[in-house]
Amino acid sequence: MDNFTFKNPTKILFGKGQIANIANEIPAEAKVLILYGGGSIKQNGVYDQVVAALKSRSFGEFEGIEPNPQYETLNRAVAMIRAEGYDYLLAVGGGSVLDGVKYIAAAAKYPGEGWDIVSDWTLAREALPIGTVLTLPGTGSEMNGAAVISRAETTEKLAFISAIVYPRFSVLDPETTFSLPPRQIGNGVVDAFVHVVEQYMTYPADSPLQDRFAESILLTLIEEGPKTLANPTHYATRANVVWCTTMALAGIIGVGVPQDWATHSIGHELTALYGIDHARTLAVVLPSLLRRQTEGKRAKLLQFAERVWGIASGSDEERIEAGIGKMEAFFGTMGLATALKSYEVGPEAADKVVSNMTRRGAIKLGERGDIDDQRVREILVGAV
Amino acid sequence: MDNFTFKNPTKILFGKGQIANIANEIPAEAKVLILYGGGSIKQNGVYDQVVAALKSRSFGEFEGIEPNPQYETLNRAVAMIRAEGYDYLLAVGGGSVLDGVKYIAAAAKYPGEGWDIVSDWTLAREALPIGTVLTLPGTGSEMNGAAVISRAETTEKLAFISAIVYPRFSVLDPETTFSLPPRQIGNGVVDAFVHVVEQYMTYPADSPLQDRFAESILLTLIEEGPKTLANPTHYATRANVVWCTTMALAGIIGVGVPQDWATHSIGHELTALYGIDHARTLAVVLPSLLRRQTEGKRAKLLQFAERVWGIASGSDEERIEAGIGKMEAFFGTMGLATALKSYEVGPEAADKVVSNMTRRGAIKLGERGDIDDQRVREILVGAV
Repeated sequence: MDNFTFKNPTKILFGKGQIANIANEIPAEAKVLILYGGGSIKQNGVYDQVVAALKSRSFGEFEGIEPNPQYETLNRAVAMIRAEGYDYLLAVGGGSVLDGVKYIAAAAKYPGEGWDIVSDWTLAREALPIGTVLTLPGTGSEMNGAAVISRAETTEKLAFISAIVYPRFSVLDPETTFSLPPRQIGNGVVDAFVHVVEQYMTYPADSPLQDRFAESILLTLIEEGPKTLANPTHYATRANVVWCTTMALAGIIGVGVPQDWATHSIGHELTALYGIDHARTLAVVLPSLLRRQTEGKRAKLLQFAERVWGIASGSDEERIEAGIGKMEAFFGTMGLATALKSYEVGPEAADKVVSNMTRRGAIKLGERGDIDDQRVREILVGAV
Repeated sequence: MDNFTFKNPTKILFGKGQIANIANEIPAEAKVLILYGGGSIKQNGVYDQVVAALKSRSFGEFEGIEPNPQYETLNRAVAMIRAEGYDYLLAVGGGSVLDGVKYIAAAAKYPGEGWDIVSDWTLAREALPIGTVLTLPGTGSEMNGAAVISRAETTEKLAFISAIVYPRFSVLDPETTFSLPPRQIGNGVVDAFVHVVEQYMTYPADSPLQDRFAESILLTLIEEGPKTLANPTHYATRANVVWCTTMALAGIIGVGVPQDWATHSIGHELTALYGIDHARTLAVVLPSLLRRQTEGKRAKLLQFAERVWGIASGSDEERIEAGIGKMEAFFGTMGLATALKSYEVGPEAADKVVSNMTRRGAIKLGERGDIDDQRVREILVGAV
């Protein structure tokens, strides 16, 4: 196990009716800005619950944080905060809203050009306090300090990670997710699955507890994911899925171990270039990546095949391929296609992605930094 | 899954040489009181590392927090803090030192009689900040808000739990535990094992992720515990054991699920009455308790037998007994006897424990509150 530091200060309020308790978490004198997306929270009752819970608190609203939250949109919220003097941000929505609000919270306290803090995270020194009400499970943004921000002008989609933007609290009421379409539930389950794999599928680091915690989440997603698609209003199943997606990216499974994240890096480019849903880019990239990184990941691929998929017979190569194949089939069960052509994208994507990535320097991805431009091309051509 | 709130704000600094980093965690102007036990930290180099790390900070020392930290001793530290004006407490030692310092931190800010806050936790409203350097894995005190305090005068040993006494940071350097005697490592592993079982072995609550996280810790302790006894200076193995003991009682595995804790309640009485090591009381009580609570715990006992011990054949009763037997054998492998008579205590303990417990009201222990005075007697007579 490598040395590590770990701190996750977010308070989770989990379960039915928990939105009613947010007033206890927000200082009485705070001037709150509620930020949300396209207005679905006004149809499913969440908006009304939030407003009721805020009681006599002074609040404003910012509507319109889109999927893959855009730098330009978010800066409008920053300007509104500065003009109107809000001092507490309440993000109500899915990962895109939460991610966007993390950027907004830090940018509102940063005197220069906002993109600076995305390019160099250390420039963000303070942030407005954030609370969240999660309505779409998957990204894990409700219990970490990470965000992903898009910029249309430059077709960029970049991570912003800082300890100062952990939510002070996050409400996870599984009932608020009952009305989500199957596509979003499928995306959320696969997104969380891949978050786990990015922290797990590397080289063995003699960290058996982290391995087993990771496998615990994978096994539970495999078990509960299809059940919640089939029966979306069964509370316990949905609750288990929501909690898995949070635990997948709360830091606990990734302490002291190598991490990959190349699938996310490549996937972000596909979203930026073609607008494919984030989780769907991961479902496309991950199987192809694993098939091309077999040497460095051999021991873990065999462990994955055995412990997660129960595959114990066959040659090493057969078991590895069977494990990856089972994973692809699971993504399919959750409604996600794993071939790039299903999204009407062909092998030309390889050069475009590499070209985009290279603008930020030489490509060195993966836990060993051995995924270079050539390997990215192979992964994408292999994913067509 | 039941509704829950979860927050664990402790920052973990894990690994080799991490003591050197504590100065970054303690405010520069703090007047620090270092608190420790019997002085072993002066033999194993930990004291010197701590003093070197504090650099130019002003600090004092309080020595002599004993195993099962005593109310009377701890109040001497409270008096010293008030007299000399310390404003940051640095606990250096094992669970007893850390537990004692949690009480001290809260009592120093409480104007009345200190025992009040142990009897009624809600009376503790603020506490001095605490940092810890853990030198003995097992209790999990380094990453939670719980302490157990003893009072010789009344032969009591009671829990004190409050969100205000979570350590601000905890250093876990596995190398500082290399010099511990096997008895203390065995105790630590079994203590952590039972912490997990208290949160896991109840009735099924449709919480598969919590179940698997719990089983992950149990499996890793079973795998790594005997290895670290056999090879106490093998870093990776010891590091895995240390991290398991922390994760066992950091709250994560117990969210939203019923919990038992009767084994701990009964065990505390045995320590208060007979001075038996805490972990050894658990090794005695737990198997007997499980054999007498089979009805309510049937489904989980079968799951435990299968997933933790690989027992898949035989009748229900046979598999349950085989699982408990394997657990007893594991405790034995770690050097802990599971019969009360091994500690020179006979069946007379049953009445004494019940008498002590009854002073605080009718006995209603376990996840269903169905362990009464008669059942406690049966458990203890069965454990002889």
